[in-house]
Amino acid sequence: MSLSQRKKHLIVHGEAPYNAEPPLDRLRAAFRTGTGDFYVRSHGDLPEIDEDSYRLAIGGSVTRPMDLSLDDLKARFPEVTVTAVMQCAGNRRYDMQAVAPVSGDPWAPGAIGNADWTGVRLADVLREAGIDEGADLHVAFESHDRVDGEDYPYGASIGLGKAMAPETLLAFAMNGKPLEREHGFPLRAVVPGYAGVRSPKWLKSITVQDRPSDNPMQADDYKLFPPDVTADTADPAEGHTIEVMPLNAAICEPARGAELTAGRNTIRGYAVAGDRKVVRVDVSGDGGRTWSQARLESEAEAPFAWTFWSIDLDLPGGEHELVARAWDEAGQTQPSQPDDTWNYKGYLMASWHRVRVTAG
Amino acid sequence: MSLSQRKKHLIVHGEAPYNAEPPLDRLRAAFRTGTGDFYVRSHGDLPEIDEDSYRLAIGGSVTRPMDLSLDDLKARFPEVTVTAVMQCAGNRRYDMQAVAPVSGDPWAPGAIGNADWTGVRLADVLREAGIDEGADLHVAFESHDRVDGEDYPYGASIGLGKAMAPETLLAFAMNGKPLEREHGFPLRAVVPGYAGVRSPKWLKSITVQDRPSDNPMQADDYKLFPPDVTADTADPAEGHTIEVMPLNAAICEPARGAELTAGRNTIRGYAVAGDRKVVRVDVSGDGGRTWSQARLESEAEAPFAWTFWSIDLDLPGGEHELVARAWDEAGQTQPSQPDDTWNYKGYLMASWHRVRVTAG
Repeated sequence: MSLSQRKKHLIVHGEAPYNAEPPLDRLRAAFRTGTGDFYVRSHGDLPEIDEDSYRLAIGGSVTRPMDLSLDDLKARFPEVTVTAVMQCAGNRRYDMQAVAPVSGDPWAPGAIGNADWTGVRLADVLREAGIDEGADLHVAFESHDRVDGEDYPYGASIGLGKAMAPETLLAFAMNGKPLEREHGFPLRAVVPGYAGVRSPKWLKSITVQDRPSDNPMQADDYKLFPPDVTADTADPAEGHTIEVMPLNAAICEPARGAELTAGRNTIRGYAVAGDRKVVRVDVSGDGGRTWSQARLESEAEAPFAWTFWSIDLDLPGGEHELVARAWDEAGQTQPSQPDDTWNYKGYLMASWHRVRVTAG
Repeated sequence: MSLSQRKKHLIVHGEAPYNAEPPLDRLRAAFRTGTGDFYVRSHGDLPEIDEDSYRLAIGGSVTRPMDLSLDDLKARFPEVTVTAVMQCAGNRRYDMQAVAPVSGDPWAPGAIGNADWTGVRLADVLREAGIDEGADLHVAFESHDRVDGEDYPYGASIGLGKAMAPETLLAFAMNGKPLEREHGFPLRAVVPGYAGVRSPKWLKSITVQDRPSDNPMQADDYKLFPPDVTADTADPAEGHTIEVMPLNAAICEPARGAELTAGRNTIRGYAVAGDRKVVRVDVSGDGGRTWSQARLESEAEAPFAWTFWSIDLDLPGGEHELVARAWDEAGQTQPSQPDDTWNYKGYLMASWHRVRVTAG
């Protein structure tokens, strides 16, 4: 089945590189996002890789470099499944554009999905390769895709602590089926809680080294800058390297601009807290003046998975601004205004999600 | 030296129980808070305990219950020092009272201190006692102090994961000296990143059990409720048990209402992020319309320690609202308004800290 058939419901931001996200009602339909409804973020081509000849190279600062086929990987390491969100650092960027222009695709809150990822623990592989767990090391990934318009492949890295964490996988399956091509077949990294940029697809090699990857994806892009920094003044070395994603919540139903029947309406959405648990979701029918608590409807253990939530609100005839905000286990909550998190790259949009609707 | 002599600079909220905090310029004077300037939060008496006859009982679901003197503890387990903040869940409550009345003392941002805590790892003691690390357990502390007006002693508990974490201590020294009486002499728990309520002083016993402590301090108090809940409607079982503290920042200098000389002024403060790192502090001289980044001046590894920060701002003649907000390593930042975190108990005040000053 072709990509466009597999992803026929997605809203496409770009064909080449291919970037697309699901409508929010489809996103909210299943706790484990169907592959047909899972957003795709790519920076170049979508490599077609032959599983039989596929090899993963593991090298750098290890005592036993390895070169593994997919069968080797499956045979030599225990299979593990982790339920986790994959989320683009630009998720919800659309709402930041209302403040001032930002670069990048105008993602709605659909640049996120939640899945059962099955594979092997990166820690198991690195231990077998003879990594020094006491050293200050980074684990760099290089991929088979070429970054659009550039002469280098996709690459990124994570610190040793996260690389050795039990949730971090080399994954070959998503929701019980082999990865589809656009999700990194035959093997990708899955780094739960981190921005998707740190979970490279179509893995070619893993290099253990004493510094972060010098690939521009790691060294220059995906940095969080303060609101007073612009494209002209940004120094990548001064930006914060985006890893763990912030607390966030989105209203998936009703849609923006929906015309509802006055009376009781059910509001539905998701919430996610990076490497923490979501402990509460507040929903307002009046722009944030008063709040009620939503039911949390999780089907997996937090952290790393999202939670679904829903609430019934009485909405009299007229216009309403629906608002959702989440709270994490540290009692942190989200800022109220898009201005509060604005940055010129449009990353980490995490202020209250606001949806205007009419009831009549 | 008497308590009032040792703590002569503190602002006293109550004499019995004794509750007091330092002026913010004194708090900002040393990265490791001097014991004379360290806030005191107590719920009852300040027991005077004889070190020579002191015993700590360790029991419950362990295979080798123990009864240890302070010398036993020091002789049998390795000494460890952790630099960590101790902070009251009610720190900054004063700013929440401006929204609507809340219960409890009106703490300024001084119900916090940062110290080198020296003791032994709770994990080492529990392993020696034969704890089952694979079980779903809680570690309950009981103290020698009696809760004011009640017939029970102070008590609280933490989950097994935090109890076994390397940063969690049974501490006998603060900044290299034996604990002073008001800080829990001769032995207290130190649970870095958590609210002070989970770090009981004057430890009497540790009980490993299959549920949280049923002491009212744990079961009923120190719960975070939504803004629509009142004293009349609060159900402790529905509140969120406060453990990890949220991201926060405070301006320590200049003081509220200060009359400054127009021109360049240095603004100084602290920031803290529970069990995460602070990666950035933004400061505004105009109520949050524009921001600049402060220098971070930490003298210890995050997380758990605070960071000091400072920035030079040009303040022309007139009134100014200085504002500080921090960002944690997940790219989360603080909400802007006290309304955004208001709850009737006045816990976890963590919106932007605002200080009005005049320059002339």
